[in-house]
Amino acid sequence: MSAAREKALAQASSSDVTDWWSTAISDIEPGIIRLRGYPVEQLIAGTSFAQMIWLMVRGDLPAPEHARLLEQALVAAVDHGPQAPSIAAARMAATCGVGLHGSMSTGVGLLGDIHGGAGQQCMQLLDDIRTATVAGDLETAVAQQVADHRATGSYIPGFGHRFHARDPRRDPLLTAVQQQVDTGTISGDYLRIAEELERQLASGRERPVPMNIDGATAVIYAELGFAPELGRGLFILSRSVGILAHAYEQSLESQRNKGPIPRQWLWTYSGPADRTVPHHGE
Amino acid sequence: MSAAREKALAQASSSDVTDWWSTAISDIEPGIIRLRGYPVEQLIAGTSFAQMIWLMVRGDLPAPEHARLLEQALVAAVDHGPQAPSIAAARMAATCGVGLHGSMSTGVGLLGDIHGGAGQQCMQLLDDIRTATVAGDLETAVAQQVADHRATGSYIPGFGHRFHARDPRRDPLLTAVQQQVDTGTISGDYLRIAEELERQLASGRERPVPMNIDGATAVIYAELGFAPELGRGLFILSRSVGILAHAYEQSLESQRNKGPIPRQWLWTYSGPADRTVPHHGE
Amino acid sequence: MSAAREKALAQASSSDVTDWWSTAISDIEPGIIRLRGYPVEQLIAGTSFAQMIWLMVRGDLPAPEHARLLEQALVAAVDHGPQAPSIAAARMAATCGVGLHGSMSTGVGLLGDIHGGAGQQCMQLLDDIRTATVAGDLETAVAQQVADHRATGSYIPGFGHRFHARDPRRDPLLTAVQQQVDTGTISGDYLRIAEELERQLASGRERPVPMNIDGATAVIYAELGFAPELGRGLFILSRSVGILAHAYEQSLESQRNKGPIPRQWLWTYSGPADRTVPHHGE
Amino acid sequence: MSAAREKALAQASSSDVTDWWSTAISDIEPGIIRLRGYPVEQLIAGTSFAQMIWLMVRGDLPAPEHARLLEQALVAAVDHGPQAPSIAAARMAATCGVGLHGSMSTGVGLLGDIHGGAGQQCMQLLDDIRTATVAGDLETAVAQQVADHRATGSYIPGFGHRFHARDPRRDPLLTAVQQQVDTGTISGDYLRIAEELERQLASGRERPVPMNIDGATAVIYAELGFAPELGRGLFILSRSVGILAHAYEQSLESQRNKGPIPRQWLWTYSGPADRTVPHHGE
Repeated sequence: MSAAREKALAQASSSDVTDWWSTAISDIEPGIIRLRGYPVEQLIAGTSFAQMIWLMVRGDLPAPEHARLLEQALVAAVDHGPQAPSIAAARMAATCGVGLHGSMSTGVGLLGDIHGGAGQQCMQLLDDIRTATVAGDLETAVAQQVADHRATGSYIPGFGHRFHARDPRRDPLLTAVQQQVDTGTISGDYLRIAEELERQLASGRERPVPMNIDGATAVIYAELGFAPELGRGLFILSRSVGILAHAYEQSLESQRNKGPIPRQWLWTYSGPADRTVPHHGE
Repeated sequence: MSAAREKALAQASSSDVTDWWSTAISDIEPGIIRLRGYPVEQLIAGTSFAQMIWLMVRGDLPAPEHARLLEQALVAAVDHGPQAPSIAAARMAATCGVGLHGSMSTGVGLLGDIHGGAGQQCMQLLDDIRTATVAGDLETAVAQQVADHRATGSYIPGFGHRFHARDPRRDPLLTAVQQQVDTGTISGDYLRIAEELERQLASGRERPVPMNIDGATAVIYAELGFAPELGRGLFILSRSVGILAHAYEQSLESQRNKGPIPRQWLWTYSGPADRTVPHHGE
Repeated sequence: MSAAREKALAQASSSDVTDWWSTAISDIEPGIIRLRGYPVEQLIAGTSFAQMIWLMVRGDLPAPEHARLLEQALVAAVDHGPQAPSIAAARMAATCGVGLHGSMSTGVGLLGDIHGGAGQQCMQLLDDIRTATVAGDLETAVAQQVADHRATGSYIPGFGHRFHARDPRRDPLLTAVQQQVDTGTISGDYLRIAEELERQLASGRERPVPMNIDGATAVIYAELGFAPELGRGLFILSRSVGILAHAYEQSLESQRNKGPIPRQWLWTYSGPADRTVPHHGE
Repeated sequence: MSAAREKALAQASSSDVTDWWSTAISDIEPGIIRLRGYPVEQLIAGTSFAQMIWLMVRGDLPAPEHARLLEQALVAAVDHGPQAPSIAAARMAATCGVGLHGSMSTGVGLLGDIHGGAGQQCMQLLDDIRTATVAGDLETAVAQQVADHRATGSYIPGFGHRFHARDPRRDPLLTAVQQQVDTGTISGDYLRIAEELERQLASGRERPVPMNIDGATAVIYAELGFAPELGRGLFILSRSVGILAHAYEQSLESQRNKGPIPRQWLWTYSGPADRTVPHHGE
């Protein structure tokens, strides 16, 4: 061993290593598993899966109404069919001999900034507007954001849908939010911001640009106090259900190495014409 | 275009392409999303996340008691701390600039045959024993399997734990199963097989080898009629919650490129001594 | 801290941790990097990338002829176009906001037993036949394997191609092998086995079943002494080049969330007809 | 089929589908494979792996000197040992039953903006400075960038190393660059910028902040005309070799579910004390 190695080890203490993997989530002793301080056997006995998700990412158990709203957002986003690249890639993976873990990892891995990030970006936008309303009124704060987006040509995340003129998940989700606003279990601040955004985006246009699934779930997650980045995480948990269902359905069929289009369909080649490697055959 | 390409396209019909992505899961029209035939707005209004998971992977909605048992299995397996390679890898990923989707994809991708497969393998074993009991008694069928495993030196999946003498998740899960056997909502066939396995594995040993989380959830998933491969899929959904919680916790800290041990600890090098590349410097 | 934790730490020594990450590959000290014992600066000065790959996975530098044959196998397998699921998935990933690392991870992750395993399986088959020839003649050993595969209905890995009647990569690769057999730098044992397999597979059939890229590279890797599992690894390194090229090409285009077929093409839905969630609206 | 589906299909043409997967990289016909226009058999006969990488990502074959410089950069970055999270995660994956494709996908997936992005970021910085030198002198342009980074507290990518006072890969790589500048095969513009950066970063400090592997390879890739994003891609190809070597070495050992630290070492728990689930047992 070199002097450098010996010196490093001499200065090291075992708590360097145990602290390196420090966590506030799970506490394990022989015969004991506590999650966020709660014995796992109590959680198994009385906690729903949605409550458990909340506990794990937030650190405390939710009120029942809040857990129900979270659950509705999780239910809403499970799937939108095999044209989504995450679902298509997971189905292709299921024919390549990679196991369900490989198919699911593939699908989850595609939920990046563009495919899986609109909800998180919408939460960030709602937050920015909310901050701006501290010093001003809602209508002006929203108008500023809309103007900023139009000036840069960027779209407002969480609004509009390439396929649905009105996303069928919008109304039931916002209805559920409104009910809890009415009973006082959530503030409604983010709902009001999103509705004002929707109103201003529709203004002067032939067709409105209603909230889509990303916008409606962003309102829910923001009302419930989740950080924007967790909006992405919760969407991934939800869409993982669709990924699993599609990968499993595909695995029951006999296809091997499924490509994106049937084998007799060749892609268009747009590159250079046939040519010879320089000096080949010399 | 070559003659081969032209011929292929001439024989192709548009239904080749639409059928290539055929699915029985999701049905989308403008303004309409149906999952397994149910309008998504109805599912949002009245379906729990656990029921939704069942619907998506099985095709029909579960009885409430069955949904509750599924939920308990999902709650039980969310996390066992950062020494699990899936959790550790996801936490390291969270310091590498890959986004939450990248961290979660990394963790899920490690739940392979060894790390994530014991539940599925236990379900297959329970199925094999159940098939054998059609022509014989339970005790003999179990004894045969135990003898087969001992002969090949392979361990019985779902029993024993390297850390817990008795996995604290075993009792609450099996109690929940027994209650539904008592009320007649499940048959109890798989519970009896697993308990007989546990009894025979303990026989003649100083320390018993009780069912672990993989065994107890295998009993639940088998009692509920899930295919063994879906046992893996459900475990992945459950553990994804722990992966998300850990990746998010890690992302809130300032570490960058977190390795497995602190930086001052160098690994042991066990390879060839310092040598010179042949012909170097000639 | 619990007694269990204290006891564990008291028994632990720092070499437990440094040995846990022991490796014979890389040896690092401040200012020094040695790979397989060689100083990295010497390797940079005089080693080709193919030689470096060999050194890293095998532990020693190859003879120049062997490095050249490895290089030809690596060159041959880089790409077969976007209908391969690994390439298609990587291209879709490139439109999802996941970075080049995410696209490449996606593509590599699909090279499983079915999509990326034929070369490895062919190497295993060649090895099995070679073992059988120790006690018997080549023709009989091959005939036995062909009969075994036909009996179980399984195909012989490395032979035949769904698209090419004769894989254009076969001849240049086998020519390169034959040249080194002629000059005595490799034994030719595996080439003879593969050619005999090809001969027997063609026997009595209208169309021959010539070696494909997996078979031809399996011959090369086996002649060079690589373990079958490394055949998979080397194929992954080779195909990673095509994955990178395709992901990068796609990233230069403007598509977002690219699905497998154009957006106006809807998939066939084959599930249950529209139905109502039980008890909905009660 | 709904009216919407029928209408979509009626408007669709088969070239929609074939164009959807258009590429300028690979052109396949029965019996023919052309890559960037070159027949694969010619490439196999006379092209090195490094030249092939260049051809695939750039579209044309490189001059021999340029291929050699690319090769040196690829050789230099293959590995820096198992404390790198990509290597550690790949080794852990290799014990989880996910196959070599799963291990390699895991490692590659961690080469994100922080772990794998410094080279790309350094190339971007060199480009920005080069653009600024069109209207001004080099010293001023560099000084401006250094001042900008110091003002925001961000570090300059490609310079300094947490472990090596002087990265041993710097000198042999820059020597190779200088030789080609001397013979006129590359311009040396980026080398001069990087050396000026190094000079100014050292100015007034006790210890210099020399270029590291990311900086030295960034100079090479920039001199060779690669786009910054391809700098990331080439680094991934290079590091994939180390990932493969480590994953394969790990797979030969008997560990299962290898965690980051030995099993007897428990992590520090920093969360809430043991508590009871509200209403539990009522």
